[in-house]
Amino acid sequence: MNNATHDTVRAVQWSGNHLRLLDQRLLPAETVYLDIRDAGAVAEAIRDMVVRGAPAIGITAAYGVVLAARALPADTADWPAALEPDMQRLAAARPTAVNLFWALARMRGVLEAGATDVPAALEEEARRIHDEDLAANRRMGELGAALLGGSDAVLTHCNTGSLATGGYGTALGVIRSAFENNRISRVYADETRPWLQGSRLTAWELVQDGIPVDLVCEGAAASLMRQGRVSWVVVGADRIAANGDTANKIGTYALAVLARHHGVRFMVVAPTSTIDMDTPDGAGIPIEERPPAEVLSLAGHPVAADGAGAWNPAFDVTPADLIDAIVTERGVVERPDRGKMETLMGRMKDEG
Amino acid sequence: MNNATHDTVRAVQWSGNHLRLLDQRLLPAETVYLDIRDAGAVAEAIRDMVVRGAPAIGITAAYGVVLAARALPADTADWPAALEPDMQRLAAARPTAVNLFWALARMRGVLEAGATDVPAALEEEARRIHDEDLAANRRMGELGAALLGGSDAVLTHCNTGSLATGGYGTALGVIRSAFENNRISRVYADETRPWLQGSRLTAWELVQDGIPVDLVCEGAAASLMRQGRVSWVVVGADRIAANGDTANKIGTYALAVLARHHGVRFMVVAPTSTIDMDTPDGAGIPIEERPPAEVLSLAGHPVAADGAGAWNPAFDVTPADLIDAIVTERGVVERPDRGKMETLMGRMKDEG
Repeated sequence: MNNATHDTVRAVQWSGNHLRLLDQRLLPAETVYLDIRDAGAVAEAIRDMVVRGAPAIGITAAYGVVLAARALPADTADWPAALEPDMQRLAAARPTAVNLFWALARMRGVLEAGATDVPAALEEEARRIHDEDLAANRRMGELGAALLGGSDAVLTHCNTGSLATGGYGTALGVIRSAFENNRISRVYADETRPWLQGSRLTAWELVQDGIPVDLVCEGAAASLMRQGRVSWVVVGADRIAANGDTANKIGTYALAVLARHHGVRFMVVAPTSTIDMDTPDGAGIPIEERPPAEVLSLAGHPVAADGAGAWNPAFDVTPADLIDAIVTERGVVERPDRGKMETLMGRMKDEG
Repeated sequence: MNNATHDTVRAVQWSGNHLRLLDQRLLPAETVYLDIRDAGAVAEAIRDMVVRGAPAIGITAAYGVVLAARALPADTADWPAALEPDMQRLAAARPTAVNLFWALARMRGVLEAGATDVPAALEEEARRIHDEDLAANRRMGELGAALLGGSDAVLTHCNTGSLATGGYGTALGVIRSAFENNRISRVYADETRPWLQGSRLTAWELVQDGIPVDLVCEGAAASLMRQGRVSWVVVGADRIAANGDTANKIGTYALAVLARHHGVRFMVVAPTSTIDMDTPDGAGIPIEERPPAEVLSLAGHPVAADGAGAWNPAFDVTPADLIDAIVTERGVVERPDRGKMETLMGRMKDEG
């Protein structure tokens, strides 16, 4: 099933001894992997966006716990207490993506269960989280691609691909799957200011994998829709609340409003690890505000006059009623609401 | 009435002998004026966006005709024929802004009327076009500012200020006037990709004039509206069709859809020279598509992987039914349609 042509990129790699992260800040100009050997450096890499994308952040944090455990004496008496400072440092690295907290909770579960070789048990769990994410992405790819229809192109936002996940991608996994199955022949990608994840990451990843991509500035997305060039918008998620409200990269909510206005359909693709049933709705999702400098400068050069300010929220919330489908590895929720989300997550609990 | 504090910038200056243009491509890093002495160089400056903004393009083209006439012998027999090549070169410089064609038509009118000193008559007409634009902007500033209310901030797009006009600005003239009259205390400005007119020009101009400005990426505009931070979107226009459909910088149409969705009001500010009664509706407005390189690179550096494409329309069309008010120097048209636009333009004809 691994199609080497259309799925070649892995941004998070575990060597058995340390973590290798593709430094996404340098793409597409340079392809540099950083070797990371301690939990503090993992937290820094998450905060500084060496690695980004909700699922990839979760996986990376899990390996961070492994590195933290390996740095402790093998005869550590109270593993949970000894690991807590690093756990907290990792949890504080980014506030919005719930996968980070979800992955840390899974690692805490291992600690609570106890093991003779705690570092080995943690490593096993981190690898499992990683493998499960990849499998979930392939499954979501199939489920999401089956929904597409109406035109031979889709619009996506930010980067939700192999670079943002354990591999294959969420929204970009659906796009990979749809391209492999000849359901689409082209992708439009928002450049995604201010970090330009679309230009720097999504375009790079799709070019690597031979999938035709045209970038558009966010301002052009409405014209794409008005001209009928896309019939679906396909995006990922950083956190999905219990009622289906979805936090994702800034600009996503605008696409959802525009899609509804134009009769274009709107799909969110995310593993169930992104769903946070403890947050009742979007109002409860903390939205990270990042430094104005990210808007006021480009590639290190100031683009705005001294004295100008900037408002730079990193995410926005799309209300559930603007979402046509949430695609997870456990199934598709159409027109999500609290009841349907509870059914999905209950099914998960029953099975797992 | 000229408030030096909040209106200090002039991008198009006529020395009496030649044209001085502020090179807007270099802002905000450098403030460089180019001295331009022939019509060919004027056409180039328009095409290469040394000068931009529909009214400023019209004024600049008018002075270009003056320079063309001065380069001809004083005893030229057939002035219209002799000037036609330069007229055509100027007309071909940018396709969307109708002010360009409107200004050239005014200059042709002078030629048709005849004059003993044709270059002097053309100069007088070009100066009149320039002065009228400035006066129109002040009048629109008053009319538009009177409509604002609901919050102490507005959102604008692209640059519609002194840099885009003969001075004071269209949408930015409304903002200047509203700020002077304490109707708003802050401006949010879209950075306006791909050319970043918001960051490079609007922020620069507002900082020069002491008006607080916060830049936002286009993707954040929907969140601004959802949070109730702005009650009006105020934009300019490159061409308004006979039914009120309005072409403006790419991204404007998205703001109009988002504004309607959020109960935010949407104002277009443009002199009647921007209204093209010969174009029945937006479908008839030619939309300039600019090179993909403008999206694929930033400040001269490639940001996207080799092999990625881009779709780069420079303008979009906002349908009249998403516009709450078109503000012109002759009055305000609320909820524009063909009948109201005809009344406005008929009134103009009667008067002038």
